[in-house]
Amino acid sequence: MLTLIDHVGVAVENIDESLAIYRDALGMPLVHRETVAEQGVDAALLDVGDCHVELLQPLGPDTAVGKYLARRGPGLHHVAYRVENIEETLQALAAAGMRLIDEQPRRGIRNSRVAFVHPGSTGSVLTEIVQPAKEAH
Amino acid sequence: MLTLIDHVGVAVENIDESLAIYRDALGMPLVHRETVAEQGVDAALLDVGDCHVELLQPLGPDTAVGKYLARRGPGLHHVAYRVENIEETLQALAAAGMRLIDEQPRRGIRNSRVAFVHPGSTGSVLTEIVQPAKEAH
Repeated sequence: MLTLIDHVGVAVENIDESLAIYRDALGMPLVHRETVAEQGVDAALLDVGDCHVELLQPLGPDTAVGKYLARRGPGLHHVAYRVENIEETLQALAAAGMRLIDEQPRRGIRNSRVAFVHPGSTGSVLTEIVQPAKEAH
Repeated sequence: MLTLIDHVGVAVENIDESLAIYRDALGMPLVHRETVAEQGVDAALLDVGDCHVELLQPLGPDTAVGKYLARRGPGLHHVAYRVENIEETLQALAAAGMRLIDEQPRRGIRNSRVAFVHPGSTGSVLTEIVQPAKEAH
C-alpha cells in the first residue's frame, strides 16, 4: 500500500537560510519551489535519491505551520508516504479505523494529490499520504 | 552523497501498541526487532518499500529518547539518510561546517554504521547518517 517515504516535511523560519543547510551542506539538489496557499506555506523540495525533503516556511503566524513553529519551534513537522492509488489507500485506512483529516484527496505541491491522517490516530505523528503527479515524483 | 531517506525514527511509549498503527493499520511489514543498549532503546523496524520506520521505546526515563518523550511527547524523533560511505560523508559534512555528535561511526540497528549530526547545525532536526550492513538495508 505504502511504497516509499515520499518526503519529510520540515518547519523552518526561513527557507533561504535552510537551503544553506540542506542544499549547500547536505548536498541535496533543490528541484522545486512553490507557494501552496491552501496550506499557508512557501515550500521548497530537495531530492534525496527518490525521496525528498520539503522545507515549509509559514505565510503567517495564523497558518498551521506558523502555529506549529510558535508552539514547538522549527523541526520535523510531518512524514509523507507515497502511494499509487490514494483513493484506495484512504478507504483502507478508514476501514482500519484511522481518523482522516482529509477524507478526499486535495492538491499538494507539484500537482500531487495528498491527504493527511490525524495525529490522534498515529501516535502524534502528522502523517501524509501522497500520490505524485505522473510527470514528477 | 545522500542516496535515500533510510528511515524516520519515531519516539513511542509502547512499541506493541504502536505496531497496531504501523503494521496493522498502515500495513508496513515488521522486519526486525532489537534492543540497542548503547542508544537506550527497544527498537522495531518496519519496511516502507526500500525505506523504513524505526519505532523507538526508551529503556528508561534517563535515556535520550526517554528524556525526549518527557519533554516533547511521542512523535517524530529523527530522520536518517542513507549513504554508501559513511567516513567520506562525515568528512564532507565536517568540511561544510556541520557540527557532528559522532565524529566516528558507531554501531546502529541491524549492524548498520551510523552517526548523528547535531540539531544545532540542522535547524533543530536530529539528523542521522546511516550506512547499512551489506546483508540488509
